[in-house]
Amino acid sequence: MAIDLQTARAIIEAARAAAREKGFKPLTVVVLDAGADVVAAEREDGSSNKRFEIAFGKAHGALALGMGSRALMARAEQQPYFIAAATTAVGALIPVPGGVLVRDGAGTLLGAVGVSGDTSDNDEAAAVTGIEAAGLQAQPA
Amino acid sequence: MAIDLQTARAIIEAARAAAREKGFKPLTVVVLDAGADVVAAEREDGSSNKRFEIAFGKAHGALALGMGSRALMARAEQQPYFIAAATTAVGALIPVPGGVLVRDGAGTLLGAVGVSGDTSDNDEAAAVTGIEAAGLQAQPA
Amino acid sequence: MAIDLQTARAIIEAARAAAREKGFKPLTVVVLDAGADVVAAEREDGSSNKRFEIAFGKAHGALALGMGSRALMARAEQQPYFIAAATTAVGALIPVPGGVLVRDGAGTLLGAVGVSGDTSDNDEAAAVTGIEAAGLQAQPA
Amino acid sequence: MAIDLQTARAIIEAARAAAREKGFKPLTVVVLDAGADVVAAEREDGSSNKRFEIAFGKAHGALALGMGSRALMARAEQQPYFIAAATTAVGALIPVPGGVLVRDGAGTLLGAVGVSGDTSDNDEAAAVTGIEAAGLQAQPA
Repeated sequence: MAIDLQTARAIIEAARAAAREKGFKPLTVVVLDAGADVVAAEREDGSSNKRFEIAFGKAHGALALGMGSRALMARAEQQPYFIAAATTAVGALIPVPGGVLVRDGAGTLLGAVGVSGDTSDNDEAAAVTGIEAAGLQAQPA
Repeated sequence: MAIDLQTARAIIEAARAAAREKGFKPLTVVVLDAGADVVAAEREDGSSNKRFEIAFGKAHGALALGMGSRALMARAEQQPYFIAAATTAVGALIPVPGGVLVRDGAGTLLGAVGVSGDTSDNDEAAAVTGIEAAGLQAQPA
Repeated sequence: MAIDLQTARAIIEAARAAAREKGFKPLTVVVLDAGADVVAAEREDGSSNKRFEIAFGKAHGALALGMGSRALMARAEQQPYFIAAATTAVGALIPVPGGVLVRDGAGTLLGAVGVSGDTSDNDEAAAVTGIEAAGLQAQPA
Repeated sequence: MAIDLQTARAIIEAARAAAREKGFKPLTVVVLDAGADVVAAEREDGSSNKRFEIAFGKAHGALALGMGSRALMARAEQQPYFIAAATTAVGALIPVPGGVLVRDGAGTLLGAVGVSGDTSDNDEAAAVTGIEAAGLQAQPA
């Protein structure tokens, strides 16, 4: 079981709508399946060049270690050398909020959403809104 | 001037519609701006894990060397060592058809579309259809 | 849905038993889930140092492009530049037989098995035997 | 002399049994030989995607510098730039507890065990239990 394209598009649409309503800066939203591969991505006009890579890194890191990227930030603040080393070992891993695990009602891991463009807190809020709008459970930490 | 998100989504929608109409295998479509950064991407259900990376590499390689990826294939058949070396130098560069440059009516380069999932010829056909449906010029070679 | 550890161990046990019965050289067997992450691996005594990486690359490449690694060999013989470029784009990808996709009875992709140590044909035979012994479908090409 | 597969499997079985008995989260256990190559690995259901890479990095780093990964953490806290630089130089090196050197009764180095999934202290405890259950000496620092 993983996020299908229709669900991924619904998450992106709802995340972007929430961002427009709240006046967030232009966002990039990336949806990954449970294996951390891209299902869909959209970069809003004005969102800077490598926002895809940042958003991807938040979601990829969350799946790699099995926790939302807010928890990775806490770990980075306690043990920066662990996060630095883990990045080398597992690839893209951006340890700030905005990488949110996606689970179904039974708790099964389906994938993750990464958002980048505004403050990390706002990025995370957009991701959570998008996930919940699709009827799924968001795990930001 | 570059491909905005609305245009990118229109390209993807038309490329996918053409693929469904012609019975192609599940496709992944990636749209890059003129700087070769991701604007939007969609991986259809059943399109394998790393199709994003393959489609990205077709479009990225096309922008890197300023020619559609069909022309990169011709070069690979003549001088495989050039393509191998260029890949190391410039990053992702997949030298088979399906990476198509996008220009406006005046010939200005706006970005590129990469498609992967079916035969390379069919991938390219879907990309060209998507670009032209958005009222833009497709350069496949 | 993905291969769980119990199933992975059953596949490895049956693949190794088949190899011992047929007198194959010492094998390394790696089982990946649908996202191409390691579930289990065993390297038999006498199997050389980097056999894990070779077996992993067969299975990882199969999942990346959605076909058994025997099909990747066919592609490498036709378009060696494609396989070389794809390796850069997607990571480990060993284009010889022995990377076999695993599906359930309904055709759902569950993961892949990679085997290395004897001839590629024998590696593949061991993988197929292991997968079928676990009651699953093997796709070697 | 190095850890053979039978010993590696015994270490994994005992480490996992200890983790189940103590209620640890799902673990990934990797056993490397003295050359830091994989002998065997198992990722328990629910252990996140890249736990293999983290566990491998603990054991690989321990062998790289000849000390358990707890000692690498002490070094990281004193000289983070050394660990960062060493990671670039030697590859995977995760400087937190859970990478434990394995020696025989005479002190000869046979390999290392890496565990990841619960707290670093619990990861290390599982590794030590596994090694000692196989009649070998564990060096966690």
